[in-house]
Amino acid sequence: MCKGGIRLNQPKNNKHIEKHFTATDLIRDIVIGMSDGLTVPFALAAGLSGSVTGTNIVVIAGLAEIAAGSIAMGLGGYLAARTEQEHYENELARERREIIELPEYEKEEVADVLREWGLQEDIIEPAVKQISSDPNRWISFMMKHELGLEEPEPKRARNSSITIGLSYIVGGFIPLFPYMIIHRDVSALLVSVAATLTALFVFGYVKGKFTGSKPLKSAVQTTLVGGMAAATAFTVAKIIS
Amino acid sequence: MCKGGIRLNQPKNNKHIEKHFTATDLIRDIVIGMSDGLTVPFALAAGLSGSVTGTNIVVIAGLAEIAAGSIAMGLGGYLAARTEQEHYENELARERREIIELPEYEKEEVADVLREWGLQEDIIEPAVKQISSDPNRWISFMMKHELGLEEPEPKRARNSSITIGLSYIVGGFIPLFPYMIIHRDVSALLVSVAATLTALFVFGYVKGKFTGSKPLKSAVQTTLVGGMAAATAFTVAKIIS
Repeated sequence: MCKGGIRLNQPKNNKHIEKHFTATDLIRDIVIGMSDGLTVPFALAAGLSGSVTGTNIVVIAGLAEIAAGSIAMGLGGYLAARTEQEHYENELARERREIIELPEYEKEEVADVLREWGLQEDIIEPAVKQISSDPNRWISFMMKHELGLEEPEPKRARNSSITIGLSYIVGGFIPLFPYMIIHRDVSALLVSVAATLTALFVFGYVKGKFTGSKPLKSAVQTTLVGGMAAATAFTVAKIIS
Repeated sequence: MCKGGIRLNQPKNNKHIEKHFTATDLIRDIVIGMSDGLTVPFALAAGLSGSVTGTNIVVIAGLAEIAAGSIAMGLGGYLAARTEQEHYENELARERREIIELPEYEKEEVADVLREWGLQEDIIEPAVKQISSDPNRWISFMMKHELGLEEPEPKRARNSSITIGLSYIVGGFIPLFPYMIIHRDVSALLVSVAATLTALFVFGYVKGKFTGSKPLKSAVQTTLVGGMAAATAFTVAKIIS
């Protein structure tokens, strides 16, 4: 599934640009969940429809996949966000100890970071003094620039996982619905393929708008991945059945 | 599937700590792909096995899912990495133009970043001068601290996607294999559940080691997500069949 890919596709957590929950975040999560939900249930249904008789098994397998996928994505994402939060808090506590126990060493680390950005020695000493004059600012400087850790937003991550998981379910029904109402295998497959490729294109387009990539390109890529996945699943199922 | 979650779980791209391909990266990708590959094919197979007669359909559906999932994950991840790379290059070109066309404005943006870290006005002016004396360093400072963009590593991202996609296939065979060799439904299900939960625990443990979270906790979480997904898929398939 494209989840791995989609995460890569999201803009990095940029504190300057967006800090709070926004309607945009919500819409983006919905679009990500739905376009993911379209892909694998679609491919599975298309794959199975070439190898089993009757649309009943396609529907059962499809719904089982949607259930499994949405749980794994929603719950998996939620637990991962919690783990990330704990990891951040542990590191924060360690930095807090270190600036008390090893202040000189920690100051030298701030200096190293500044040196890397091209600051000259004449400025580094006063700059380190200014940064380290406020313990909270000092710690957050170390977290960000020494450890490369951004402060996680636990509520946002949790809500995001739940939204993506639920949207996966909604998205998954698009490829499956034709098999539920049309009971002739080939017709159901054709309607499902047409509906899903259209939906993948539309969602890919909207996803591109919300993730900062070119909408048309995102539309073509999303459709391509879904189509390739379905074609491969169809071929594999045909060969072994 | 847990892909969304897993990405969250990975340590942030930390240039100070690791810059090059390492054996660790490879192992981590393999473990991530395999533990993901275990989850949904497992849940799908378990779900179907309660509702269809014969292990044949379970195997066909499982292999179709593995094919679809690995394509979506590998190809999806690869295309997303390419998009991210292009996005970075576009922004880089824009910053390169801006430091020539609007140097004063861009210097003021560097000053804003430094102010946020707690530097005082007496240092900010010379610090901005030093950072902006080297155009490349200036641009990379803006990319990182104004836009929050890290330089992507396209080769690493591509290899990572391919490794994860292939490992997904290998992982997916663990829950499916019992259905291939045992043709009594209930026995196959029990062996698959036992083998997969064990594998989820082991891979979750190793994944924790490679992603910076507590190994035992990661093991329990990975097993829990897989088990919940399978139980839900089983229940859904039972209800509708």
